[in-house]
Amino acid sequence: MPNGKQKQSKLTLVHTRETSVGIVERQFAHFDTPLRLRSGGVLENFTIAYETYGTLNADKSNVILICHALSGDSHVAGYYTDDPDEAPGWWDEAVGPNKMFDTNRYYVICSNVIGGCRGSTGPSSLAPDGKPYGLRFPIITISDMVEAQRHLLDRLDIPKLFAVGGGSMGGMQALQWAVNYPERVENVLFIASTPRSSTQNIAFNEIGRRAIYADPNWQRGDYYDRPEKPDAGLAVARMIGHITYMSEYSLETKFGRNLQNRSQLAYTFDTEFAVESYLQYQGEKFVERFDANSYLYITKALDYYDVSEGYSTIYDALRKTNANFLVVSFSSDWLYTDKQARELVDPLRRLKKNVEYQRVKASFGHDSFLVEVETMTELVGGYLDRMWKKKSRPNKKNG
Amino acid sequence: MPNGKQKQSKLTLVHTRETSVGIVERQFAHFDTPLRLRSGGVLENFTIAYETYGTLNADKSNVILICHALSGDSHVAGYYTDDPDEAPGWWDEAVGPNKMFDTNRYYVICSNVIGGCRGSTGPSSLAPDGKPYGLRFPIITISDMVEAQRHLLDRLDIPKLFAVGGGSMGGMQALQWAVNYPERVENVLFIASTPRSSTQNIAFNEIGRRAIYADPNWQRGDYYDRPEKPDAGLAVARMIGHITYMSEYSLETKFGRNLQNRSQLAYTFDTEFAVESYLQYQGEKFVERFDANSYLYITKALDYYDVSEGYSTIYDALRKTNANFLVVSFSSDWLYTDKQARELVDPLRRLKKNVEYQRVKASFGHDSFLVEVETMTELVGGYLDRMWKKKSRPNKKNG
Repeated sequence: MPNGKQKQSKLTLVHTRETSVGIVERQFAHFDTPLRLRSGGVLENFTIAYETYGTLNADKSNVILICHALSGDSHVAGYYTDDPDEAPGWWDEAVGPNKMFDTNRYYVICSNVIGGCRGSTGPSSLAPDGKPYGLRFPIITISDMVEAQRHLLDRLDIPKLFAVGGGSMGGMQALQWAVNYPERVENVLFIASTPRSSTQNIAFNEIGRRAIYADPNWQRGDYYDRPEKPDAGLAVARMIGHITYMSEYSLETKFGRNLQNRSQLAYTFDTEFAVESYLQYQGEKFVERFDANSYLYITKALDYYDVSEGYSTIYDALRKTNANFLVVSFSSDWLYTDKQARELVDPLRRLKKNVEYQRVKASFGHDSFLVEVETMTELVGGYLDRMWKKKSRPNKKNG
Repeated sequence: MPNGKQKQSKLTLVHTRETSVGIVERQFAHFDTPLRLRSGGVLENFTIAYETYGTLNADKSNVILICHALSGDSHVAGYYTDDPDEAPGWWDEAVGPNKMFDTNRYYVICSNVIGGCRGSTGPSSLAPDGKPYGLRFPIITISDMVEAQRHLLDRLDIPKLFAVGGGSMGGMQALQWAVNYPERVENVLFIASTPRSSTQNIAFNEIGRRAIYADPNWQRGDYYDRPEKPDAGLAVARMIGHITYMSEYSLETKFGRNLQNRSQLAYTFDTEFAVESYLQYQGEKFVERFDANSYLYITKALDYYDVSEGYSTIYDALRKTNANFLVVSFSSDWLYTDKQARELVDPLRRLKKNVEYQRVKASFGHDSFLVEVETMTELVGGYLDRMWKKKSRPNKKNG
C-alpha cells in the first residue's frame, strides 16, 4: 500500500487485533439456479464466497454490502486464524467496532465477485464437464457481479441494504445496485470510482491484458493443468495497474530516484532504482494470489462499464434510482478523476436526487481511499451515522 | 500520431513534397577512436548515422543540431526516394524551407543516437568479434549520446552550434550539450522535456523493460540469429510508452468508447474498442522498425538522466553553461510536466542565465510538440529568428 512514513505508522497502530473485528470465516453460497449474464451467456450453477461482520438486527435494517475492487476479495477485515503473523483483511481499518463501518451497529457483508478467483465461481473454477472453464467462462459485467450478489442476499433473506458501497470497481457495483434494484438500496457510497470507464482506463487495462496474452504460458487461458503459469505476463499487468493507483507525489516521496541497496549507479540492467524493486515486488506478490484469466475477465468488466449501457442516456439510467448518494473523489486520483466523479454527480443533481459530493484533497492518488483512513472515517462513517439517525427518527421531517 | 481530425487534415496539407526539403540521404561516419562512456565502458569503434539539410554557410555559423526522442532516428525530414507512397521524416513539418527550422537559412544536422538501431552503433551492431553485441553492449547515458554527436561534429569540422534542440529525450541531449560543451552551444531548445527523470518516468520505463524481459524470445538479448524476436514484449512496451505520450483529452476525442468495426458490444476478448485496436497497431508497427535491446538501452539512458549527476547540485551543473535557453512545456503533457520544465527554468533564472520559458496550452499531451505545428513554428521558429538577427547585428547591444 503506497503511503508516506507518517501514514504507515498510523496504519500500523490501527492494525492491531485489539481494534479488529476478530476472527472471521469465509462462507460459500452455492446456487443451482442459472445466472443469466448481460453477454447472453449463462452460468448454470455458481458459488459465491462471502464473509459477514457484526450482527444482523431483528428487522434486518442494518445491512451494509461492501463491494471490492479489481484485486480484492471477500476478506475485507479481521483474521482467519490466531497466527500472529497473519495479515488482516484488505480494509481492516474500515470495518470493525467503532470504525468507518461500525460493526457495533451495522451488519457488513462482503463477497468475492463472480469471475473472481478467491472462492466465487470464475474462469479457474471447474465447469460442469469437470475441467476448469478457462476462456469458456462467459464474459461478465459489473451488472452481473451485482446480480450474483443479489442471489446471495436473497439466500440470506435480506430484502434491503442500508448501504452498498466500495472504492474503485466497488463503487461501480454500488451504483449499479441502485440502478438495477432501486427499492433495495437506501444509500450508495461511490468512492474513487467512475460511472463510465474512460478511454485511458480502457487503454491501460488493454495493455495489461496484452501482457498476459503475450506470455506463452497463458496458452489461450488453458494453463491450469500445466506446471508453468502466465506469471510473467500477469506480473507486468499488475505493475501497469499499480502505477495508475499511485500519484506522482506518492512515487516521488516514497522512492524518488533512490537506489535499491546501492550508494551509486551500477550501470546494469539489474534492479537499480528503489521504485523498480517496489514494482517488481508488487508483481511477484500478486501472481501468488491471483489468477491471470480472472484478471482478464475483471478488467473487461471494468472496460465495459458505462452506467448508461442499455439506456439512451445516463439520465435514463439514473432516473428511477431511489437511494441517497455519497460520492467521494480524491484530488490526486488520475485513474478515476474528479471529472469522472462529476459525470455521476451532475446528472444526479439535475435529477434532484439526494447526493452529497466530497472532493478530498489527498496526495496518494487512487489508493487514497485505502490510505486516508481518518478522513474517510469522518466522511463515510459520518455520512452513514447521519443517515442511520435520520432513518431511526421516522417522525421527523427528512432534510 | 495522436491528433484530432482538424489537425490531421492540416498535417496532411503540410506533408506535401512541394513544401518538403526534398530528397535526402542517410550518411555514416565511422570512428576508430574509442568512445569512453559514463558507465566506465568503452566502444573501441563506432558508427554514427546522420543526415543534413540546407547548406552550411561560409563561417559555419548556421548549424542546428536536432536530437531525436526515444523512437526517432536521423531521418528528421524529407524523403529518401521518389516513391510517392513513401512517408517523410519524423518531423517533416518542422524542417525545410520556410519551416520552423528554415533550411533556407540554417544547416540542420540530425544523427541517430549511440545505442540506437537506425544506423548508429547499438546492441544490434556487430561487436569486434563479429557477433551482435546484445547485452554485451555497454550501458549508455544521455551524456554519451552527446559525446558521440560531438565526435560527429568534429569530423564535420563544425566548431559551434547556433542551436541544439529537441523534444523529449532530444531536449535532454540539448541541455547536456550546453553543460558538457558550454563554448560550443549558442542556443538550447528544450522542448517537452525534463532535466531529471521522475520516479513515475522510471516506473513506466521499467514496466516496458519487464515486458521485454518476460518475452521468452528475448533470450537475455541474444536473439539476433533466431527466427523469433521478442516482438510481443516490445509491442507491450511500446503500448505502455504510447499511452504516456497522449493526454486523456487526445484519447477521449480520438476514440472515446467507440467500438472497432462493430455497432454493439460483442462480449469477447477480441479487440472491441477502437482504442484497443489503435494501441495494438502502434505496437505492431513499432516492432517492424525497432530493436528490443535498443529499447532497453535507451530507456535506461532516460532513467539515468539527471543533469545534476556528477555535480553536487543542479546549480553546479548549470553554472558554466553559456547558451541562451528556450524552454517549452505543454499543459497537458503528463509525461514531462510543466513542473519538470520549471525544475530547469527556476535554477537557470536564479543563475541569471538567459532563459525564455513558454508554457503552451495544448490538448495533445506529450505529443503536442509534434502535433502543434503552427504554435511550435511561431515559438521555436520565432525564437531562432530573433536569436539569429541578434547575432547578425553584433554592434547592437544584446538584450
